[in-house]
Amino acid sequence: MILGKFLKRWVTPYNEQEKKLAKVVTRIIGRRPFNIKLYHLAMQHTSVAFESGAMKGFKESNERLEYLGDAVLGSVVAEYLFKRYPYKDEGFLTEIRSRIVNRESLNRLAVKIGLSQMVAFEGRKNSALSHKSIYGDAMEAFIGAVYLDRGFHFTRKFIIHKLLMMHYDIEEIISTTTNFKSLIIEWAQKNSKTVDFTISKQGGKDGKQFKVNLIIDGEVQAVGSGYSKKKAEQDAARKTCEALTLA
Amino acid sequence: MILGKFLKRWVTPYNEQEKKLAKVVTRIIGRRPFNIKLYHLAMQHTSVAFESGAMKGFKESNERLEYLGDAVLGSVVAEYLFKRYPYKDEGFLTEIRSRIVNRESLNRLAVKIGLSQMVAFEGRKNSALSHKSIYGDAMEAFIGAVYLDRGFHFTRKFIIHKLLMMHYDIEEIISTTTNFKSLIIEWAQKNSKTVDFTISKQGGKDGKQFKVNLIIDGEVQAVGSGYSKKKAEQDAARKTCEALTLA
Repeated sequence: MILGKFLKRWVTPYNEQEKKLAKVVTRIIGRRPFNIKLYHLAMQHTSVAFESGAMKGFKESNERLEYLGDAVLGSVVAEYLFKRYPYKDEGFLTEIRSRIVNRESLNRLAVKIGLSQMVAFEGRKNSALSHKSIYGDAMEAFIGAVYLDRGFHFTRKFIIHKLLMMHYDIEEIISTTTNFKSLIIEWAQKNSKTVDFTISKQGGKDGKQFKVNLIIDGEVQAVGSGYSKKKAEQDAARKTCEALTLA
Repeated sequence: MILGKFLKRWVTPYNEQEKKLAKVVTRIIGRRPFNIKLYHLAMQHTSVAFESGAMKGFKESNERLEYLGDAVLGSVVAEYLFKRYPYKDEGFLTEIRSRIVNRESLNRLAVKIGLSQMVAFEGRKNSALSHKSIYGDAMEAFIGAVYLDRGFHFTRKFIIHKLLMMHYDIEEIISTTTNFKSLIIEWAQKNSKTVDFTISKQGGKDGKQFKVNLIIDGEVQAVGSGYSKKKAEQDAARKTCEALTLA
């Protein structure tokens, strides 16, 4: 199969754009791509989606690859943390994983490894907010392309050795506690919005379970819960940060 | 490595409980397990967690394996749907995947393949609600155990050939539209709760974007959004169904 892939690449000449992309891919993954078309597709943001010849009405962009890459990245990081921290519970593992694979972190990663410069998107049509996730989305789509091009084991090694180990300081990630509440308050001040936290419920057997509404400009944005008012507020703030792609 | 695993199994005699479990595992995955301890752990619900000798204060249960299995299952199903439906967008793929791997569906799967009878949990301590997810959690933990025991490729084949193809009718899953709103209303009637949907915002450029609060017993439970009132209600209902593990 490998030989077949190699021959296919060898007999299909690259155009100029593909040559440039092949160089970048080779630098990033350490091997020459078998199927450059996959990587090309991974760099096509939905704003430059094109109609596929194969199926009328179906527009091709990197969104399908992003869906695949997200799942592959999630499972590789899950296993890595599982084995690295044998005595940590699943709450810890889930939290650290989400800090590694969140949009903001993947945006930074795409810039660091030089992927961002290859992403094609229609700039004027997009707001500043949606721009923020373009690189992170392309990062996931790129991982989806590596997976289809080179298989699971290669992709697993690529993620662990060339992404996690080279670009993440996991001990530092662990020691940092993200303060979602202050992120939201900061965001609201910048955007001239009002933020309120109100307790909507206090209950449970011991009266220590809280539900908190996060209200932006008078409208409930998220509901958080936790075993203290502070935790419930953080929970609501975290949900809102995710919805607004602030963290 | 395979030989090492084989020898390890061969030289460590099984106790009676392990013998029984090994038979069940062999029937389910079609091969004899290398490391029966992994499968044993996968069957230990957190209600029967035991303190590990290796680390003081750390309690062992199937929750870590569940976290790992959830990620592996997610990525295998993601890839399977990606390849099976080359002209469907990522919204479709994400939706169908979540219908396949949701808690209720995994509960049923665990019962179907005979895994549920092996799960150990402390019955009296748990409410009827939490019981509902015990088998689905064990199903994920089992997949995590298969992954650690046999590796990615074996697990991928196991999931596709022995779970997806044998126990799911994916075309039927696709043709079914879950009506989350009616699920919530049904649940509320059963549990003597009141449910209200109120529009909290109508806006967007064309005035067609809606935000809806789902209110249970006077308390905002979830916020849904969509391009029609109906879609926003479905969105809020879906979120609440997930929180209540109804779907």
